[in-house]
Amino acid sequence: MKKYIEVSPSLICADLCNLEQEVNTLQKAGMRSLHVDIIDPHFSPSMPIGLSSVEQLKAKSSMDFDVHIMSTDNEFFIKKLVKIKPASIIFHYESGIHVEKMLQLIKEADIKAGIALNPATPLDVLEYVVEACDYVLLMLINPGYADGKNERMVPYALEKIHHCKEFLKCHNSKAKIIVDGRVSLESIPKLLNAGADVLVAGSKSVFRKENSYAANYQQVNEIVNNFFKGGKHDEL
Amino acid sequence: MKKYIEVSPSLICADLCNLEQEVNTLQKAGMRSLHVDIIDPHFSPSMPIGLSSVEQLKAKSSMDFDVHIMSTDNEFFIKKLVKIKPASIIFHYESGIHVEKMLQLIKEADIKAGIALNPATPLDVLEYVVEACDYVLLMLINPGYADGKNERMVPYALEKIHHCKEFLKCHNSKAKIIVDGRVSLESIPKLLNAGADVLVAGSKSVFRKENSYAANYQQVNEIVNNFFKGGKHDEL
Amino acid sequence: MKKYIEVSPSLICADLCNLEQEVNTLQKAGMRSLHVDIIDPHFSPSMPIGLSSVEQLKAKSSMDFDVHIMSTDNEFFIKKLVKIKPASIIFHYESGIHVEKMLQLIKEADIKAGIALNPATPLDVLEYVVEACDYVLLMLINPGYADGKNERMVPYALEKIHHCKEFLKCHNSKAKIIVDGRVSLESIPKLLNAGADVLVAGSKSVFRKENSYAANYQQVNEIVNNFFKGGKHDEL
Amino acid sequence: MKKYIEVSPSLICADLCNLEQEVNTLQKAGMRSLHVDIIDPHFSPSMPIGLSSVEQLKAKSSMDFDVHIMSTDNEFFIKKLVKIKPASIIFHYESGIHVEKMLQLIKEADIKAGIALNPATPLDVLEYVVEACDYVLLMLINPGYADGKNERMVPYALEKIHHCKEFLKCHNSKAKIIVDGRVSLESIPKLLNAGADVLVAGSKSVFRKENSYAANYQQVNEIVNNFFKGGKHDEL
Amino acid sequence: MKKYIEVSPSLICADLCNLEQEVNTLQKAGMRSLHVDIIDPHFSPSMPIGLSSVEQLKAKSSMDFDVHIMSTDNEFFIKKLVKIKPASIIFHYESGIHVEKMLQLIKEADIKAGIALNPATPLDVLEYVVEACDYVLLMLINPGYADGKNERMVPYALEKIHHCKEFLKCHNSKAKIIVDGRVSLESIPKLLNAGADVLVAGSKSVFRKENSYAANYQQVNEIVNNFFKGGKHDEL
Amino acid sequence: MKKYIEVSPSLICADLCNLEQEVNTLQKAGMRSLHVDIIDPHFSPSMPIGLSSVEQLKAKSSMDFDVHIMSTDNEFFIKKLVKIKPASIIFHYESGIHVEKMLQLIKEADIKAGIALNPATPLDVLEYVVEACDYVLLMLINPGYADGKNERMVPYALEKIHHCKEFLKCHNSKAKIIVDGRVSLESIPKLLNAGADVLVAGSKSVFRKENSYAANYQQVNEIVNNFFKGGKHDEL
Repeated sequence: MKKYIEVSPSLICADLCNLEQEVNTLQKAGMRSLHVDIIDPHFSPSMPIGLSSVEQLKAKSSMDFDVHIMSTDNEFFIKKLVKIKPASIIFHYESGIHVEKMLQLIKEADIKAGIALNPATPLDVLEYVVEACDYVLLMLINPGYADGKNERMVPYALEKIHHCKEFLKCHNSKAKIIVDGRVSLESIPKLLNAGADVLVAGSKSVFRKENSYAANYQQVNEIVNNFFKGGKHDEL
Repeated sequence: MKKYIEVSPSLICADLCNLEQEVNTLQKAGMRSLHVDIIDPHFSPSMPIGLSSVEQLKAKSSMDFDVHIMSTDNEFFIKKLVKIKPASIIFHYESGIHVEKMLQLIKEADIKAGIALNPATPLDVLEYVVEACDYVLLMLINPGYADGKNERMVPYALEKIHHCKEFLKCHNSKAKIIVDGRVSLESIPKLLNAGADVLVAGSKSVFRKENSYAANYQQVNEIVNNFFKGGKHDEL
Repeated sequence: MKKYIEVSPSLICADLCNLEQEVNTLQKAGMRSLHVDIIDPHFSPSMPIGLSSVEQLKAKSSMDFDVHIMSTDNEFFIKKLVKIKPASIIFHYESGIHVEKMLQLIKEADIKAGIALNPATPLDVLEYVVEACDYVLLMLINPGYADGKNERMVPYALEKIHHCKEFLKCHNSKAKIIVDGRVSLESIPKLLNAGADVLVAGSKSVFRKENSYAANYQQVNEIVNNFFKGGKHDEL
Repeated sequence: MKKYIEVSPSLICADLCNLEQEVNTLQKAGMRSLHVDIIDPHFSPSMPIGLSSVEQLKAKSSMDFDVHIMSTDNEFFIKKLVKIKPASIIFHYESGIHVEKMLQLIKEADIKAGIALNPATPLDVLEYVVEACDYVLLMLINPGYADGKNERMVPYALEKIHHCKEFLKCHNSKAKIIVDGRVSLESIPKLLNAGADVLVAGSKSVFRKENSYAANYQQVNEIVNNFFKGGKHDEL
Repeated sequence: MKKYIEVSPSLICADLCNLEQEVNTLQKAGMRSLHVDIIDPHFSPSMPIGLSSVEQLKAKSSMDFDVHIMSTDNEFFIKKLVKIKPASIIFHYESGIHVEKMLQLIKEADIKAGIALNPATPLDVLEYVVEACDYVLLMLINPGYADGKNERMVPYALEKIHHCKEFLKCHNSKAKIIVDGRVSLESIPKLLNAGADVLVAGSKSVFRKENSYAANYQQVNEIVNNFFKGGKHDEL
Repeated sequence: MKKYIEVSPSLICADLCNLEQEVNTLQKAGMRSLHVDIIDPHFSPSMPIGLSSVEQLKAKSSMDFDVHIMSTDNEFFIKKLVKIKPASIIFHYESGIHVEKMLQLIKEADIKAGIALNPATPLDVLEYVVEACDYVLLMLINPGYADGKNERMVPYALEKIHHCKEFLKCHNSKAKIIVDGRVSLESIPKLLNAGADVLVAGSKSVFRKENSYAANYQQVNEIVNNFFKGGKHDEL
C-alpha cells in the first residue's frame, strides 16, 4: 500500500521577481504545498525573502503554505505569520527557550505546527513536544548557509531520518517527517526508504534548470512511484 | 533656475508578487531610481522584502537602486549589498558604533553612501561624516512601523528638513536630502520648499490606488514643476 | 507510611500591596515555605515583583523562601539573591551555558540549589548535575506567560513528573520534585501519584478567591492526606 | 508669583511590604504624585519592584503615578504600562533607537510622556522631540546604581538643570523638569533656583528616617515656600 | 600494549611576557602540542590572551597548536583561526546553533576539529556530530572561571570521561578525549583509567612552581608510564 | 615655551611573544608610557592581546600603562583593570549607557580616566563629563579594524583635533588630547599643530621596521622639538 509523499517546492528557489506566475506554474504542475523559508539574518547569514512578499503571495494562491521560520525570535515571526494563515508553521528548537509556548501560539490559531532541527541536534529534545507536532523538519544541510555552493547533505542524513521515524513510532506520533536540503533525484529513494514523508524540493529536483517545473515534478513523482512499486522500501 | 528633484518609488509599496513587471512599469513611467527598504526585524518590527528578491531584481533592471538598510547589523547588510552593486547604500546612524567604517565599506565599492536618521535624531551627529555622504535620509515617520496605519509625518518634519539644508550648507556638503515617510501630493511643495532633493514616493503619491503609476508620477511631476515655476520656494 | 508533601504558596498570587500581612496570614495558616518567582523580562514577558520587595520581606518573615529565577542572566540574580539568604535558589537550565558554575555559586553560600525545566525540556540534561541538586522544578505551564488566561497544564505533565521520579531514582538522587503551574484541587492527587514532592500553590489552590488562605490550605492538606490514606498512590 | 513645585516621593524608598498603607500615608500627608522606578536588570544592576506590584497599587490609589522606565526594551514596558494608565510614562533616551515611536505609543494612550537623560547625556538629543514631551527627567546620579552608598549628585547637576531650563525656553517647550537623585533638604533651594519643577523625593527628604513622611514633607514644603518668598531665585 | 597519551601544556599558565622562550622550553622538554585557550569575555568572565599573540607565536614555533575557543561567536573565531593554521580547533557546543557548520568550516581548512562540553552538558548532544570530531574536550571545571581559586574538578569528572569513552566506542568514533581542568599528578592515573587521551596540563602538573617544566613533564610521564606498566587500567 | 608631548608606543605593535624585553627596550629608549589596546571582539572584529598578558606585564614594568578599552561591556573591563592599577583607563563613549558611572569607577580607584571617541562621534557628547576626564582620546582610524591595510587617517582628523582643543578650552578642561591611528613622521607636526598632547605611536613611527625603537623614538622627538622650535604652531 502506497504512502502519500508530499513534494513541496521551495519558494526561495523560484524566480522571486515573478512570484505570482511561479506559484501558478508550480500549482498547475500538480504541486499542492509550498515550502516557504523565512530567514532572520540573526539566525544565519541570509534573508532571502520578506514577510510582505509571503503575505501578498498567500492572498493570491490556494496552495498550502508551509512556513519554515529560521529566527532567533520565534515569537515575533509566529505572531506575524498566524495572521497570514498558512497551512503550517515550523520553527527551530535551537533558537528559543519557550518551545511549548511557541507550539501553543501556532495551534491556538488552528494552524499545523512543526519543529525543525539543525543537522547536529539530537531527536531526544522532542521527547515531550512531539505529541503536539504535526511535522518534524530535519535539516540535511546547514540552514541559511545555502549560498555556500559546497553545502552538501550531511553524511548522517539517512541515519537521522531513520532514527526520527523510529522515534515517532515509539512516541505514537503521527507527525510527518519533512526533509530539507539538497533533496535530489538520486537521493529521493534513499530518503523515502529512511522514512521521509515530505520532500522539500529545491535546485536539485523541481527547480533543476534543464527542465520545466512540470517535467521535473513528473520525474520526481515517477521516482517516488517506482520506489513504492518496486518494493525497495524496507520499512514503510 | 530649476533644481532636479528625484522621485524615487518605494519598492515595498509595489506588488511584491510581480516585481519584474512593476519595476518595468515604474521605469516606463519615467522614474529612474528605486528606493529599496531592507528591514532587519531586530531593528524594527517588520521584514518586508528579502535580499535575494532585491538581488534578482537588480539583475533584471537598469534602474538605480538606492538601498536603505534598517538593521542592527549594518556591516552584514553592507557586505551583502555591495555585491549587488546598487547605486547607493544608506544606513542608520543610530544602530551601530562604527559609522565611519560603514561609509568606507560602501565608498571602497564605488557605491554612493548615505546616512539615515530617525525622526528624533539630531543632525549634529553627522558633523564629521557629512563630507563623505552623498545622501542624508531623513525619516519623517518611524521606520519599519508603517503597518501602523496611524503613522503620520512627524510635526517637525519640515523644520528638520530645513535645518538639514542649512547644516549641509554650513559644512559645504553637496549631499542630497532624501525625505522618507508619507510623502503625499499635498506635502510635496512644503517638502521641496524646506529643502528636499529626493522624494521617496509611496502609497500617498506614486502608489495611490486611484491611478496608474504613470498618471501618479505625472501628477507628482506637475506639482514639482509648478512649485519651481510658481516661485513659491523661498530658499532653493 | 506517609511522605511529607510541601505546599508552597506562590508569592506573586498574593496581594502585593500588603506583602507583610499576606505572608503572616500564610504562615499562620500553617505554611512554612514561600515560592518566590523572580522574572527577568528578557526571559519571558513579565516582571511581577522586584528584588527589593523580596529582600525586605525576607527580613520580616521566618518562612523559608524558595526563589525561582527566570532570567537570561542567572549569575546576576544568583549573586544578588545569595545576599538575601533564601532557603533555596532555583534557576532555569535553558537560559545559560554555565549550569555547573551557577550551582556552585548557590551551594558555596550554603543555600539549597535547584534547576528548573521548561515544559519542553527533556530530563536528560540533568544527567551530571542532578547529584548537586536539592530540587528539580518542573514547569507545568510556560513560565512568565501566566497572564495568558488560557495557559493550561501541559498534557504531558504527569508523564514528565513520573519520568523525573524514575530519573532521580536511577541517579540515586534525593532531589525533591517541585511542580509549578496550575496546581489545582483536582490535579493534586494525580500530581502526588506521579511523584511530586512540593506543590507550588497558586490561584487554583491556596489563593482561590472563594475562601481564606487557611481554609484553602486545609482543603489542600485534606486532599493530600486522603491521597496517602486512601492508598491511591501506586508508587510512592 | 509662586510656581507650583511637585514633590514626588519615590516608591522604591517606601516599605515595599506594605505598599498600600505607605501610599495612603504619603497621600494623607498631602503628596499627590508618586514616582515609580521600573528598572530592567539589563539596563542597570537592580530590579527593585515589579510590574504586578505597580499594577495592583495603581488600582488601590488615586495618586498620580509617574512611571520612570529604565530598560533596554522600552517598547515592552510602555505597552505593559499603558494598560495600567499611570499619569505619565518616562523612558530613557539612551536605550533605544525609536524615541519618536515610544513617545507616540504613550501619547496615543492619553498618558503624559517624558524622556529621561542619564547624567552624561547632553540635552541636544532632545531637539526634535522636546515638543512632544510633558517632562524631561534629569538623572542627577547614575540610575539603578543607587545601592552604591557612595553615589552622590554629579557635580554638574545644577548647571545641567539650568541648561535644561534654557533649552526648554528656546524651544518654546512647557515640559517640566524632573530632578532625580539624592534630592536633599540642603540641595532643594539650589535645585529650584536652577529650574527644577518636580523633585523626586527619596531617602534624603520625604523618606528621612528621623521623621514621619508628613513631617518630612512639611519640611520640604517649607523649604520650597521659603525659597519663593525669599526671592532667592534668579530666574523662575 | 601502551596507548599514546598526549600531555598538552596550557599556554595561559605560562609566563605571558616571554611566550617565545616559554614555548621553546616546553618543546625542548619534550612536549609536542600546546593547548591554547581563547576566551571571549562574553562567554565567561576572562580574556587571558589575544589572537595576535597566538598568531605571532604560531609563526615562531613548530609545536602543534590546539586552540580551544570559548566564545559566544564561534564563527568569528573559527574564521580568524583557520588563517593561523593550528593543528586543531575546538569549540563549545553550548554557545551556538550551527554546530555542524562550524565543524565544516574547520575541516574544509584541513584542520582537526573538536567539540568541547561544559561540565553539565550531557554527551548525547554529540550523537550526530561525533563522527566528524577528531576530539571531544571535556571541561572538568567551569571554563573561564579559573581565577576563582576554589574551582575544583567536578565530582562527576571520572564518571563522565568513562561515559564518553563508552559513547565513542558505541559510535565507532576514533575521537580522542581531551580532559581540561585541574589535571594534577594525583588525578592523572584516575583520568587515564577513565579514558582520557589528552591531558591539558596546567598549574597542577607541568606548571607547578616547585620544578622546571622539564622536571614536571618528566614526572607526569613517569606517572603515565607507571599507569600503563602497572596494569592499573581496567579498560584501555 | 614648549609644551610636553607624550609619545606613547602601542603595545599591540610590539613583538607579542617577547613582551617583557620589548617593554624594557621601549623604556630604555626613553619612553615613559605604554598605550595598551584591549579589544573585545564584540566591539570590533579583533582581540589582539589578553587581560592576563597585560596584568603580568604590568607587574614587571615601571612604565605608565594607559589602557584603552574597546568593548561593549565597559563595566566588566574597568572592574578587571582597576585591579591591575594602570596609570589611566580610557573607554569608548559609544558603547554604553552609563558613561558617568564608568568614570566614577575609574576615579574611585585613583586612576586617571579618559573617554575615547570613534571618528564619526561629535565632541558635544562630552559636554557634561569632560570635567571629570584626564584624557580625551580621538580615534583617527576605525578602532579594531587596523588589520585592514587600507585603513587611513580620516580626512577630518586635524579638524577634529582642533575642535577638541577649542572644546576643552571652552569647558576649562585640562584634559589631554590623545590621538590614535596612523600617527606617522609626516603627520606629527600637523597633529601637534592641531592640538594633540599624546601621540599613540605605532607602525608608522616608533615601530617602523627600518630602525630600532630607540632610533625611531629619537626621530619622533626631533620632529616634535623642531615643531616647537620652528614656531610652526599657531596656537599651542
